[in-house]
Amino acid sequence: MVPIISIVGRSAAGKTNLLEKLVPELRSRGYRIAVIKHMGQDFELDYSGKDSWRLTQTGAEVVVLSSAQKLALVKLIDHDASLEELSYFIGADFDLILTEGYRQDKGYKIEVYREELGGGLLCSPEGLLAVVSDKPLDISVAQFSTSDIKGIADFIEHRFLSKRQGDIVLFVNDKSIPLNPFVKEFLFKTLLGMMSALKGVKEIKKMNIWLRQRSEGKQ
Amino acid sequence: MVPIISIVGRSAAGKTNLLEKLVPELRSRGYRIAVIKHMGQDFELDYSGKDSWRLTQTGAEVVVLSSAQKLALVKLIDHDASLEELSYFIGADFDLILTEGYRQDKGYKIEVYREELGGGLLCSPEGLLAVVSDKPLDISVAQFSTSDIKGIADFIEHRFLSKRQGDIVLFVNDKSIPLNPFVKEFLFKTLLGMMSALKGVKEIKKMNIWLRQRSEGKQ
Repeated sequence: MVPIISIVGRSAAGKTNLLEKLVPELRSRGYRIAVIKHMGQDFELDYSGKDSWRLTQTGAEVVVLSSAQKLALVKLIDHDASLEELSYFIGADFDLILTEGYRQDKGYKIEVYREELGGGLLCSPEGLLAVVSDKPLDISVAQFSTSDIKGIADFIEHRFLSKRQGDIVLFVNDKSIPLNPFVKEFLFKTLLGMMSALKGVKEIKKMNIWLRQRSEGKQ
Repeated sequence: MVPIISIVGRSAAGKTNLLEKLVPELRSRGYRIAVIKHMGQDFELDYSGKDSWRLTQTGAEVVVLSSAQKLALVKLIDHDASLEELSYFIGADFDLILTEGYRQDKGYKIEVYREELGGGLLCSPEGLLAVVSDKPLDISVAQFSTSDIKGIADFIEHRFLSKRQGDIVLFVNDKSIPLNPFVKEFLFKTLLGMMSALKGVKEIKKMNIWLRQRSEGKQ
């Protein structure tokens, strides 16, 4: 699976600010990063004409707007998506997913702390990977100063990225299937071998296979 | 591959209008539809705060905004994406992709025509699957009246959807690899068999496999 780390913290603690510095640092080390931001409120797409917005109301599962500068894919949903649903939505084409928010989720978390906001840490230290703080705190969790972007990136790289080998991720019926190391290696080598025999395939850096069963010609 | 049909036509011919009626009709028949709209100009995401917009400037490959109503995935690019690139971006989890625009692309096209706009058809009839027109035209291509949504949906269903069986789509290094019917069936059955032996997997309606090679721990 693509590792997911949530940047949590009180409002105005500096979560977006940290992401704005951390993403370019990790990017400069060659990693591919996706960012997820949890929105407390609904939001709109804004563009001239707004015709395309009408399209999302038609029952199309997704609407994609494509300009020379930007691709936007919009999907209407009826509930707050979990990080597992989001990771399926995003796909596995990344080294790391960083999120802003998702404090309730069980995944890895880094809390951004600013003393002047008061109230102590939002999360209990046991639930945290690390704290990024403007003042040293008396806790037993890894701590970084707000300006130590390289230190935070080193920490994430060492723990989640540097040991990543080739990887294989399997989703069945939209849910990720855990694979033990033996099965992972077996599937990885088998699929690489099978697909490299196909016409038109040379060096395989990555592959993506979609398979769908149909009954009665429909879904 | 997921079939792609482009709805083309002059400005104000009624392309969005047609899509707004056609998508629900196809949806009601049980098909899963994605819609792509080509934007001549750049567009923005609009939401309170706009913090997340800053995130797209950080070098993150994609930024996802997630609310209880909507998921939006934004990717900055440096060129107008082709339909092939867009189909990789969207994935293969659909029965049909309908696009608005993409007249230059080589794929299947349906032209929407309104006599009062003048100037005749935009596309030569040979390049068209069908014409949707407010007046009968003297051409040898399939024609539908603008109000005949069921007829247009029947035509698309018969030609592209009703015969779709289980399908497998393979992308290697972001490019789709054509598979002949024998290879398709071989891969389809082999993968279904392999994966159905895994713990935690029962009935497989669909699966999605991501595989990535890494050298030196990075991409």
